[in-house]
Amino acid sequence: MDLDLAQLRAFDATVTAGTLDGAARALHVTPSAISQRLKALEAATGRVLLVRSKPVQVTGSGQSVLRLARQVALLAADATRELSPEDGDRPVTLPIALNADSMATWVLPALAPLAGELAFDLHREDQEHTAALLREGRVMAAVTAAADPVPGCSVTRLGGMRYRPMATAAFAARWLPDGVQPAALARAPVVVFDRRDDLQHGYLRSRGVDPAAPPLHHVPASADYITAVRLGFGWGMVPRQQEPPGELVELDDGGAVDVVLHWQQWRLRSPSLDRVADAVLAAARRELDQH
Amino acid sequence: MDLDLAQLRAFDATVTAGTLDGAARALHVTPSAISQRLKALEAATGRVLLVRSKPVQVTGSGQSVLRLARQVALLAADATRELSPEDGDRPVTLPIALNADSMATWVLPALAPLAGELAFDLHREDQEHTAALLREGRVMAAVTAAADPVPGCSVTRLGGMRYRPMATAAFAARWLPDGVQPAALARAPVVVFDRRDDLQHGYLRSRGVDPAAPPLHHVPASADYITAVRLGFGWGMVPRQQEPPGELVELDDGGAVDVVLHWQQWRLRSPSLDRVADAVLAAARRELDQH
Repeated sequence: MDLDLAQLRAFDATVTAGTLDGAARALHVTPSAISQRLKALEAATGRVLLVRSKPVQVTGSGQSVLRLARQVALLAADATRELSPEDGDRPVTLPIALNADSMATWVLPALAPLAGELAFDLHREDQEHTAALLREGRVMAAVTAAADPVPGCSVTRLGGMRYRPMATAAFAARWLPDGVQPAALARAPVVVFDRRDDLQHGYLRSRGVDPAAPPLHHVPASADYITAVRLGFGWGMVPRQQEPPGELVELDDGGAVDVVLHWQQWRLRSPSLDRVADAVLAAARRELDQH
Repeated sequence: MDLDLAQLRAFDATVTAGTLDGAARALHVTPSAISQRLKALEAATGRVLLVRSKPVQVTGSGQSVLRLARQVALLAADATRELSPEDGDRPVTLPIALNADSMATWVLPALAPLAGELAFDLHREDQEHTAALLREGRVMAAVTAAADPVPGCSVTRLGGMRYRPMATAAFAARWLPDGVQPAALARAPVVVFDRRDDLQHGYLRSRGVDPAAPPLHHVPASADYITAVRLGFGWGMVPRQQEPPGELVELDDGGAVDVVLHWQQWRLRSPSLDRVADAVLAAARRELDQH
């Protein structure tokens, strides 16, 4: 198939912006130029790549082409930087998927030293689902619970985040005065991140409690989740990296759960991506549990 | 149309869980019982209410029925509480949509005193899009930028959040040594929340700068957004309620933008919903700009 860089760029920009108009603005061309390039790319590949909804949706075939488009863009940007540093001023944009708790704790300080030269397009997803964004070609790298490599990706073990059931002392005294008894756990309010967060449910099941029994508060932002536990909304599974010093008590010595995280990235010799991987891996060695 | 409470509950639970299996677990019945109730509800309404995808998707007709189901559930739970407080132990679940910055700042402390009696199912959305969740019947109330009432809802003005362009002093010295000149703004990295966040783009346009020009970092979590600005990833529009004391400098005296927020809720005499509204309105009077 004949590759046309302008067509791939139009496709990439349309997926990024979500609309043809947005892509046109980003690339400084008319929406009709974007539309023509998309049609030509679909003709060249013989596939429908995008559903023209708002926002556009990438088809199964479109995922392969999106990944190709982004790989080519990254390699081209890296080459531009090497050949003529003065033209390479515009940073390469790296789409990366992170689980919410990693983004809220150890990843941003690791990326900060590179933020003047690279542009980070961070996507927030549950650690069980970041790998899907990699598979769909939406991101170049991901912090993920998945140890099996996504096709075309390499995997490195980062280490573990240890979650423990915690609450304020006042909450524990009110709702769990005799400790984590099943009858009390079935009534004590729980703070859950979102519908995909199974950590609290897993702990309840391990103690013989139906996770549908207690009242649930859903607080779908990492820092706000900790705030809700601190404010006494309920108990929750709190990672060591986010424990507010001295404010919470551990409810159950035997209740810790280790979530092991991996770094997956496209197999691609890109100096930009390699620098990010080096920074993330070094931070993980310091900040995550290595045993 | 003949209302069947068990059918409405099955429909509500399926949308909440995303799958028929999840709804079956939540209601302690078999998946086939859920499936039969959904079919009966669709037969009774003469409409397809759900696309059986994973997760299920609510159709246009389904949105009206979802809203009805949740209104009935709230009224029934309120009535149970009044008639027999001892059976009313199980808290009413209130789905509420919040913009990320409100969730990260003033709303959780306002809701905390009610968290032992009510269960909060918080949804995080851009303030321009929380009203859509209300329209779809997914939430009973929303903090939203929309001043026009969603059909069937009441609106109360909450007050304003004032956003100002800010960065670290080191960032300003490196990237904007002569202040907010268009040429410098076109090169200085910007921290943007997500693709729906137009605050930074709006400021750039007001200064005659193409928002497509500077490098963008996307950091889609409210507390993490502030962290990224503090770590020097870029400049960003920071609300007064989230300013880390003394750490950031204001880049432009004339750059403030006020986002006016409103509380919209179903018109429904529900003591539970009224208590939440009272708590939110009282906190807004204290924490938001009232002028």
